Amino acid sequence: MTRRVESSGAVMSFLHCTRSALNIWKMQSRVRIETSALLLQACSGCGFVRWKNTAANGGRSMDYQFSNSGWRQLVVGVLAGTGAVLVYGLHRQQVQQAEPKNTTELTSQTVSALGNEVKPTNSIYTRQDVAKHKTLADGVWVTYKTSVYDITKFVDLHPGGDKIMLAAGGAIEPFWAMYAVHNQEHVYSILEEYRIGELSPEDQKQATMDVDDPYGNEPLRHPVLKVNSLKPFNAEPPVELLSENYITPNEIFFKRNHLPVPEVDPKTYRLQVMGEGLKSIQLTLDDLKTKFPKHTITATLQCAGNRRSEMNAVRQVKGLNWGMAAIGNATWRGVKLSDVLKYAGLPENTNAKHVQFEGLDKDLTGIPYGASISIRKALAKDGDVLLAYEMNGEDLSRDHGFPLRVIVPGVVGARNVKWLSKIVVSKEESQSHWQVNDYKGFSPSVDWDTVDFSTAPAIQDLPIQSAITTPCNNDYISADNEEITVKGYAWSGGGQEVIRVDVSLDGGKTWKVADLTGEKQDAGQAWAWKLWQLTIPLPKGQKNLEIICKAVDNNYNVQPDTVAPIWNLRGVLNNSWSRVKVTIKPNSG
Amino acid sequence: MTRRVESSGAVMSFLHCTRSALNIWKMQSRVRIETSALLLQACSGCGFVRWKNTAANGGRSMDYQFSNSGWRQLVVGVLAGTGAVLVYGLHRQQVQQAEPKNTTELTSQTVSALGNEVKPTNSIYTRQDVAKHKTLADGVWVTYKTSVYDITKFVDLHPGGDKIMLAAGGAIEPFWAMYAVHNQEHVYSILEEYRIGELSPEDQKQATMDVDDPYGNEPLRHPVLKVNSLKPFNAEPPVELLSENYITPNEIFFKRNHLPVPEVDPKTYRLQVMGEGLKSIQLTLDDLKTKFPKHTITATLQCAGNRRSEMNAVRQVKGLNWGMAAIGNATWRGVKLSDVLKYAGLPENTNAKHVQFEGLDKDLTGIPYGASISIRKALAKDGDVLLAYEMNGEDLSRDHGFPLRVIVPGVVGARNVKWLSKIVVSKEESQSHWQVNDYKGFSPSVDWDTVDFSTAPAIQDLPIQSAITTPCNNDYISADNEEITVKGYAWSGGGQEVIRVDVSLDGGKTWKVADLTGEKQDAGQAWAWKLWQLTIPLPKGQKNLEIICKAVDNNYNVQPDTVAPIWNLRGVLNNSWSRVKVTIKPNSG
Repeated sequence: MTRRVESSGAVMSFLHCTRSALNIWKMQSRVRIETSALLLQACSGCGFVRWKNTAANGGRSMDYQFSNSGWRQLVVGVLAGTGAVLVYGLHRQQVQQAEPKNTTELTSQTVSALGNEVKPTNSIYTRQDVAKHKTLADGVWVTYKTSVYDITKFVDLHPGGDKIMLAAGGAIEPFWAMYAVHNQEHVYSILEEYRIGELSPEDQKQATMDVDDPYGNEPLRHPVLKVNSLKPFNAEPPVELLSENYITPNEIFFKRNHLPVPEVDPKTYRLQVMGEGLKSIQLTLDDLKTKFPKHTITATLQCAGNRRSEMNAVRQVKGLNWGMAAIGNATWRGVKLSDVLKYAGLPENTNAKHVQFEGLDKDLTGIPYGASISIRKALAKDGDVLLAYEMNGEDLSRDHGFPLRVIVPGVVGARNVKWLSKIVVSKEESQSHWQVNDYKGFSPSVDWDTVDFSTAPAIQDLPIQSAITTPCNNDYISADNEEITVKGYAWSGGGQEVIRVDVSLDGGKTWKVADLTGEKQDAGQAWAWKLWQLTIPLPKGQKNLEIICKAVDNNYNVQPDTVAPIWNLRGVLNNSWSRVKVTIKPNSG
Repeated sequence: MTRRVESSGAVMSFLHCTRSALNIWKMQSRVRIETSALLLQACSGCGFVRWKNTAANGGRSMDYQFSNSGWRQLVVGVLAGTGAVLVYGLHRQQVQQAEPKNTTELTSQTVSALGNEVKPTNSIYTRQDVAKHKTLADGVWVTYKTSVYDITKFVDLHPGGDKIMLAAGGAIEPFWAMYAVHNQEHVYSILEEYRIGELSPEDQKQATMDVDDPYGNEPLRHPVLKVNSLKPFNAEPPVELLSENYITPNEIFFKRNHLPVPEVDPKTYRLQVMGEGLKSIQLTLDDLKTKFPKHTITATLQCAGNRRSEMNAVRQVKGLNWGMAAIGNATWRGVKLSDVLKYAGLPENTNAKHVQFEGLDKDLTGIPYGASISIRKALAKDGDVLLAYEMNGEDLSRDHGFPLRVIVPGVVGARNVKWLSKIVVSKEESQSHWQVNDYKGFSPSVDWDTVDFSTAPAIQDLPIQSAITTPCNNDYISADNEEITVKGYAWSGGGQEVIRVDVSLDGGKTWKVADLTGEKQDAGQAWAWKLWQLTIPLPKGQKNLEIICKAVDNNYNVQPDTVAPIWNLRGVLNNSWSRVKVTIKPNSG
């Protein structure tokens, strides 16, 4: 599906020259909408959006490389802000059923003045009624505050493409909270056009907490998350959202809980530090925030089971059926574990080998989640292990370990213990189930009858990884398109830097090198992923494409071609080539 | 081909209990040869040898794990020492045409007394005559000192199996030098049985040196080496020798020279150390050996082009056509680079980023070989970068960099600069051709017209690697065999420990886990390879086997399935699955 949005070259020029989101907002009110050369393309499957300025750039697509925050804000701006203004023009045209003008001046004033008529209706709907309207066939309904809207006709005009469908059948607020650019007068105006009624009084109340359920006091989660398990809560975002932001928004960062989420009072919270050669000490949150230097790192966390569903497709494994979005990238702020250990008296030449962690999350018998890392990693000058209290500039959310968690960059998510209660320096590994009898890799020949967990090391650093986030598997692409854009993420454990991503459209016969974006980090401390994309001519005369990506890190480790030879009974460590099949629909003409 | 050698359980018991080569020598003179349970099996293709004690061990094969030197000496002992004594028994039986006795006591005295008759002949042969006799069909001739021997009939009795064929058509001394156990009276006695004449007077003289040839002063090399390039000299051992010794003997350790081998006078040798924040100093060999603590590490070196021939089979690449033996494992002794840099005044918080090395090997314009490593690696407490003057307990040989070379464990061979003349601490990488315009990895899509060497990082740490050394490709295996043994090596760069090797006999459909042997080294400092082997039932009713191995390191990085997707124009970094095809010959019965 290709949408054509007519606008002016001015939009493209600010895309080129502006790195500040502020400027985007400033320019929105004086954008000219013209019949010109800006194409906004959206993939039917993923809602991926690509800008192309055919006039200004000789028909070539452009790659935008921005600093961390600039990139993030720009994407948000493009998808939801500037786009909204452009679409508003189309919307207005449709409402007015007027002929398109060659140049239409849109100002804040005109935006405010147009389509601002509130059309109250008296119909009453339940949330269940709304939930039945999730498709274009059934109608697309959403709620905002206490009102209900039928936005079916707006879907095709949404500048963020089909991403609007993520909210279908439910509340729009969580999405607008994530893409805050919606919080503008003209956006509310558009929405009001589509109001069809109000929520029932019962549904206007919040659900009450079930205090008897160990999971009765879980935090609210973003509805866009794809839930793999409700109790404990395990969920990942739609993969197409993942590569949209270099920094994964907290709300959609994958959640991987092993047990109920504890509720921790930060005033009474204490971190215990003890073990081999240490004084046993207790630290308050305030101690941690005031007695030690603060450090910030950008680091990617990945679940060992990321992409497990592809292993399940080979042969059933044990574990949550993760797609390819059990990974995310965030900035973490806190104190260095090594500083805290030194403060607790860790001797210079300790003979300890491991640092164990315990969480406040406990099973019904009172056993907490636990894990350990090597003391080599804990103390390495460039190891950057943090006790983090902030994620992306905010206090950790409850799902992400409030008030304190370990961030072990380069290392599997499972060792990044949340709701951290205790640190024990030891000669021994943690004896936690998750350290000794889980999160280990085995040969495909090992099954549950023959597995001996003592024969494999606990997963720590993760191998080189990459995945295709756009297009999605089984997407249709029109043969009318001259080009195709493929996007994804790439990351390697152990601080190894991703140096290249190769993309194939022909099942691995030929390859092209993708463009990488991301914060520059030194090899050895390259904790954060790279996002990548490649725009290439759509091969002519083909009915199908098998799109593949594979990444290389600075150790020149590469991903294996296929899943089956790395299949393992726990379905961990799937880093085989990411493969997506798409169908090319014949030319419309 | 299966050979049965009758001997006593006593041999096996000393294999079990003895880790000292000395004990092997002591016991040789009182070994009993009996009709008993020791099987010595040799593969027709590779001459691989496997001991099996059917009586003492219930028919199961056994893995011998020995310390570094113990392992090496034991293997040598088994292959060439003890075996020689056993075979001597067979030889004697053949000579005497006597019925085998159930128990025959062999002592040093009886060995000396038997077959000691010298049979001089007057025939004169040239080395060319000898060189024509390299096969069983043409006869197998060797020389020892000035004499010529036709050992055709002995080949089948040789305890080292077909390895004796490596010497066919040439001098036996280099092999006996490598397997010093041959240096025994009874071995000379056996050889004398086969004497057929003398070398011509001309051929008894050494070849003289060509002083005008830049390569006219190269050291003598072991004839078993497979030469990929004579000038500069580049050669690797037969792969079947590689996995025979955990420590690769110096003589057969692959030689990779970029330029003529310099001849260095150790008395006048000086190492210059200089650069960013350093005093410029000069160190003599004696300074190095006396002013700094000595360190010994066992580390594997691998050429970036190891297994390049498999890439050549996909599409022609540029580079020496290495097989899979451009890798070796040795103990290195020297001083820590970091100690020398501190001695030269390197500041604690240097802002240098690289340590550059220059060799004494120069091209015709006087430009020396050069390379650099990161200062992170150079200074890392667990980086173990050595300036080495000893290899396997001996002064470095000329081919391996006498008198001093860098050993950068975990890092590609090319940075382990030989004949080290200069160390420069710098903000910049070495600008040597080999650092900036060579030894880098690229996408398969990059060719010599499009390559931009500035876009890829210089190879440093190498990826996970393994290869099958036994059986050899295109070997024949008799269907009479109940089992097949597969052997090889596995290694990973960056100090990553090999934690598992999977072997498949069916082209990758099913896998078995191989047994690993090797020195225990900590993950992160696991510089040395592991040897591995797997003995499994020979599949019934099959005509061919496609044998594959793949290794996993403690980062759970794995090898890619196929070569083509990692093909690159320089043919470096081939770490795809190692594949060997063998044909099964139908049952003899």
